[in-house]
Amino acid sequence: MSNKKKNPFVMVLFGGAGDLAKRKLFPALYGLYRNGFIHEHFSVIGLGRSRKGQEEYRQIVRQSVNEHFRMSVNDPEELNSFSMKFDYISLDVHDLDGYQRLREWLEIREKEVNIPVNRLFYLAISPKLFGQVSKNLKIAGLTEGNGWNRLVIEKPFGHDYESAKELNNQIRTSFAEEEIYRIDHYLGKEMVQNIQMIRFANTLFENMWNNRYISNIQITASETVGVGDRAQYYDHAGALRDMVQNHILQMVTLVAMEPPSRLKPEAIHDEKVKVLRSLRRWKNEDVLQNMIRGQYTKGFIGGQPLPSYREEEGVQNDSVNETFVSGRLLIDNFRWSGVPFYIRTGKRMYRKETVVVVQFKNVPDNLYFNKNNALEPNLLIININPKEGLSLQINAKQPGTVSEVVPIRMDFCHDSKEGLPEAYESLLHDATEGDRTYFTHWEEVALAWKFIDPIRKVWDGLDESTLSYYEAGSTGPKESDLLLKKEGFHWHDLGEQHGSSK
Amino acid sequence: MSNKKKNPFVMVLFGGAGDLAKRKLFPALYGLYRNGFIHEHFSVIGLGRSRKGQEEYRQIVRQSVNEHFRMSVNDPEELNSFSMKFDYISLDVHDLDGYQRLREWLEIREKEVNIPVNRLFYLAISPKLFGQVSKNLKIAGLTEGNGWNRLVIEKPFGHDYESAKELNNQIRTSFAEEEIYRIDHYLGKEMVQNIQMIRFANTLFENMWNNRYISNIQITASETVGVGDRAQYYDHAGALRDMVQNHILQMVTLVAMEPPSRLKPEAIHDEKVKVLRSLRRWKNEDVLQNMIRGQYTKGFIGGQPLPSYREEEGVQNDSVNETFVSGRLLIDNFRWSGVPFYIRTGKRMYRKETVVVVQFKNVPDNLYFNKNNALEPNLLIININPKEGLSLQINAKQPGTVSEVVPIRMDFCHDSKEGLPEAYESLLHDATEGDRTYFTHWEEVALAWKFIDPIRKVWDGLDESTLSYYEAGSTGPKESDLLLKKEGFHWHDLGEQHGSSK
Repeated sequence: MSNKKKNPFVMVLFGGAGDLAKRKLFPALYGLYRNGFIHEHFSVIGLGRSRKGQEEYRQIVRQSVNEHFRMSVNDPEELNSFSMKFDYISLDVHDLDGYQRLREWLEIREKEVNIPVNRLFYLAISPKLFGQVSKNLKIAGLTEGNGWNRLVIEKPFGHDYESAKELNNQIRTSFAEEEIYRIDHYLGKEMVQNIQMIRFANTLFENMWNNRYISNIQITASETVGVGDRAQYYDHAGALRDMVQNHILQMVTLVAMEPPSRLKPEAIHDEKVKVLRSLRRWKNEDVLQNMIRGQYTKGFIGGQPLPSYREEEGVQNDSVNETFVSGRLLIDNFRWSGVPFYIRTGKRMYRKETVVVVQFKNVPDNLYFNKNNALEPNLLIININPKEGLSLQINAKQPGTVSEVVPIRMDFCHDSKEGLPEAYESLLHDATEGDRTYFTHWEEVALAWKFIDPIRKVWDGLDESTLSYYEAGSTGPKESDLLLKKEGFHWHDLGEQHGSSK
Repeated sequence: MSNKKKNPFVMVLFGGAGDLAKRKLFPALYGLYRNGFIHEHFSVIGLGRSRKGQEEYRQIVRQSVNEHFRMSVNDPEELNSFSMKFDYISLDVHDLDGYQRLREWLEIREKEVNIPVNRLFYLAISPKLFGQVSKNLKIAGLTEGNGWNRLVIEKPFGHDYESAKELNNQIRTSFAEEEIYRIDHYLGKEMVQNIQMIRFANTLFENMWNNRYISNIQITASETVGVGDRAQYYDHAGALRDMVQNHILQMVTLVAMEPPSRLKPEAIHDEKVKVLRSLRRWKNEDVLQNMIRGQYTKGFIGGQPLPSYREEEGVQNDSVNETFVSGRLLIDNFRWSGVPFYIRTGKRMYRKETVVVVQFKNVPDNLYFNKNNALEPNLLIININPKEGLSLQINAKQPGTVSEVVPIRMDFCHDSKEGLPEAYESLLHDATEGDRTYFTHWEEVALAWKFIDPIRKVWDGLDESTLSYYEAGSTGPKESDLLLKKEGFHWHDLGEQHGSSK
């Protein structure tokens, strides 16, 4: 984030007293406010079905910040001033009259503080309503003015290519593509944003970032939580749609993309799209060879007994939904030909961890191999969550021996007393400043679905016997390990990560 | 070190009660004994001019270990057993009768413990006596037997090529080259020995270790101490002979050598010799352009006022002897053409530090340069002393900013509770096991002098006005900085090293 340029704006927050607003958005706005990363003339108008008084709403805001901000708030005065930026209007999203009242409120406020008409429409509501709300905003004339209009929406963007396209067409009647900010909160994470810096600002890595030096790349996003209160959605969506289509494929594109011609959102977006176009699409038989789906059975995490997925509340007791996906992805271009990208994500796994591991090829065996058995490969480890940092595994001399070679770990950890900004803080700031670098372009969404849909189709045509199972608290089904073993690799288990959970 | 194979032997220690024996050799032998890295049937026969009783000598051994071993000795019983391995004989090195008595003692001892005739002759005495002692050992028939004979000697090996050759001829009348172990204690340092592992066991470094990716290499061996009680020797030798001819050039060869065909002493030695042969020899005018000599004036270290070199006890008050050398070395081969090796060593400098810094070339300026000014280059930092470890400076995203790139440091530190073995421990072990990898071969000594001599000759022909001066406690004379500045580089000051001083 930078505090060089700041735009005054009004944030129009649908779902203004909802879960996302309370847990993520209020604390994120507060972080920006507190650090001077937001224009002093910003306002937030919260919208919701229920009736609330202004003071009642501001109390909710203050309480949310106190509960969910990444550090303790020790300036109640400041928090109070912050909450005064918030107003609340009760609105039925289907009722056009409500939009008129909203418009009047906006025009008064904008005149009051004498700012241009810069409006950030944030839809923290069900995706089913995205089309309707967009349309109503336009009809009510809310998307016109002398400043900018931006629409911020959250996943899921459809459940397949067709539904995503339909959703996109609906919102595109009211907003141009460059006005739409599709949030993938993984792209707001510090170390995900760091991937391109690490790659392109370092001779050491830039020169080695290709199939001459890299043998395989492993991307893991494992969770220890189960399905929680999202069972109804999740039991139909599954891990492939919930994690792979968006977060995992976004990480793949950032790791794999060519250097952009400029550090501009369009240039970076072009390169990400090129990766998705080069991604080999698994169909039919290929899916069985390269994609593993799993579901957790009962087990233990930290000594705690846990139910199987089918026993979870809200899940059908004969569900064949996958709670785990691992896969082997190939990118058919000059840089990556022959380098498998192994991906892995799941619920109720042994550890909460998002990590990218780049495994380099071995040195020729002539010098050290014969004497001391196999050397470990060099690994670049990008820890994304919960630890944020960078590690490099290299080989060095075992101290006090003549020539025993052992792997050692060189580490860099982000360690800021102030605490690192949360993903939403970073993304909200970018949205207010009009930087779309870390938002998902429609083309990326579309191509990701085109990769996912054929896999989904094959899986949906299979019966239960082809589903793999893994115990809650494990690293996933054994088929996931075999996927790598076939090519002489294994998942790198890098030990427990320490750090604050985010 | 390894405890796989261990040879029984007798160490015949000339200078048996001298300074080196007490400060380094007894503690090193004790470290090997304590850790089982030495054969249980080893004996040491200390030789010296003065008369001493056995118990008196063993008391000296115990006291030395207590004072100088790298950790506290908490098993007096063990130390006592250790000291029982030591005997003492009074010997005038010029008196052949004494050698006969020594021979009798050795034969009795070897029979007593029933070991083959394995004899390690360690000359911890003035180099002036090396020739005489070697000759007498042979005359007295001490170098014959059914086991091995090895001669361990310490620097200096002459003061120029001619004197070194003469010294070598003398000892070669009694010992073959492969029986001679020339100690350069820098080669016993953990991280110096690690250089080849780091280079050859890591794809990341091995592939980048050449003039396509490396812009320059900097080797610093700075001391804070002054000339101490070595003034008489040092004021004639100077830093060029005392540090560059041996320690610095040895480090240059390890950093620069091609991968050896095998990890055998001869193969490594061949590659080191090739580097020294490719080292461009500075002559006449070139010396003035590429080699800087300096002498310290008065100054401060840690607030403590210090005298100038000329005011030090034992130094001539009009001395033009150099206490500092920096230089630009070029290695004319395919790997290193165009990559300057900057070397620097001096007394009374700001910090005690031995470090190798490998500076990689910058990435192309197109992506990040324009936006954020100059990126720092990638650096691989091999900390040799007093800190022992490895650091990598890379560029990464400044946390909490959009795209500010800052250099970060990834570190690995040797950190062993047991303490790392001292250089002498490692080298003594290698000598007892017959591993000459980290000893200096005659050819290396000879070629190093052939590089040094022409520089010495030019400097000796110059008057005082060409000597550079630097304040005690500084980083050296400004001419040393200009040497790099001319080529667009600067000495990397990497901050205070922490760690035990060795």
